[in-house]
Amino acid sequence: MKRERERMALALAEAEAAAAEGEVPVGAVLFDAEGRLLAAAHNRVRSLNDPTAHAEILALRAASARLGTSRLEGSSIYVSLEPCPMCAAAIGFARLKRLYFGAYDPKGGGVEHGPRIFDQRSAHHRPEIYGGIAEARAKKVVQAFFRERRRVEQG
Amino acid sequence: MKRERERMALALAEAEAAAAEGEVPVGAVLFDAEGRLLAAAHNRVRSLNDPTAHAEILALRAASARLGTSRLEGSSIYVSLEPCPMCAAAIGFARLKRLYFGAYDPKGGGVEHGPRIFDQRSAHHRPEIYGGIAEARAKKVVQAFFRERRRVEQG
Repeated sequence: MKRERERMALALAEAEAAAAEGEVPVGAVLFDAEGRLLAAAHNRVRSLNDPTAHAEILALRAASARLGTSRLEGSSIYVSLEPCPMCAAAIGFARLKRLYFGAYDPKGGGVEHGPRIFDQRSAHHRPEIYGGIAEARAKKVVQAFFRERRRVEQG
Repeated sequence: MKRERERMALALAEAEAAAAEGEVPVGAVLFDAEGRLLAAAHNRVRSLNDPTAHAEILALRAASARLGTSRLEGSSIYVSLEPCPMCAAAIGFARLKRLYFGAYDPKGGGVEHGPRIFDQRSAHHRPEIYGGIAEARAKKVVQAFFRERRRVEQG
């Protein structure tokens, strides 16, 4: 569990970087089977003007480009928040071995909530799934962001 | 219906370009509310080494970059095949007004099959959906590709 929490701390640092940039605070890091860091990314939907620029998508694209393959078998992704359906499906296409996430997302999540992408009969690939890693801190990062946003919006 | 079929013909031409490149033959075109072509793209998962490089994702990213916004309200996307869950969710994030697709995809589709992304209570946005546009030709493009692939694989 120590290794998992250390890696999740990197994803949380990415999430905090996103928050500082005014992006929805989600971060993701990808490790290969040998434990090498392949990619680290955070949500950049606003700054890139890209509706698909979630942390997981950016990390998957960076790691795939780096390794020269669209399949990252054996790799593990650590995400600060339960992936949405788009990112969950992308994780399946990339054939990741393990998915670790921090906070659960009952509203927008697509792994343990909503469409439960990997439970679909049509899912080509299902990674091992570990939710709630460093959950308290992961929740705090998301909650702080939305509390601040409400404060700003209410003037 | 004439306009819809003409636009779908562009998406099908993109799908055929994908097939010629050895990619899964799916094409997508995006039009804004005024009927201007914003983007045209086809699947490039192999050539880009990018598991997320489906036609719809590439078209959404290109149109968003061009307009300088992650929300393409009022726009319509035409896809040769029913979008997968990843692409359906991305279409929702981009707030597209209308989704037209050609062939239905019982195995991999995420709109009328599988997780039915836009029917989820957690879906933020649901476009108008029109399936089966130029369906016969759309089906042929996909079937020809997989028939050829089986032929090659069997030697």
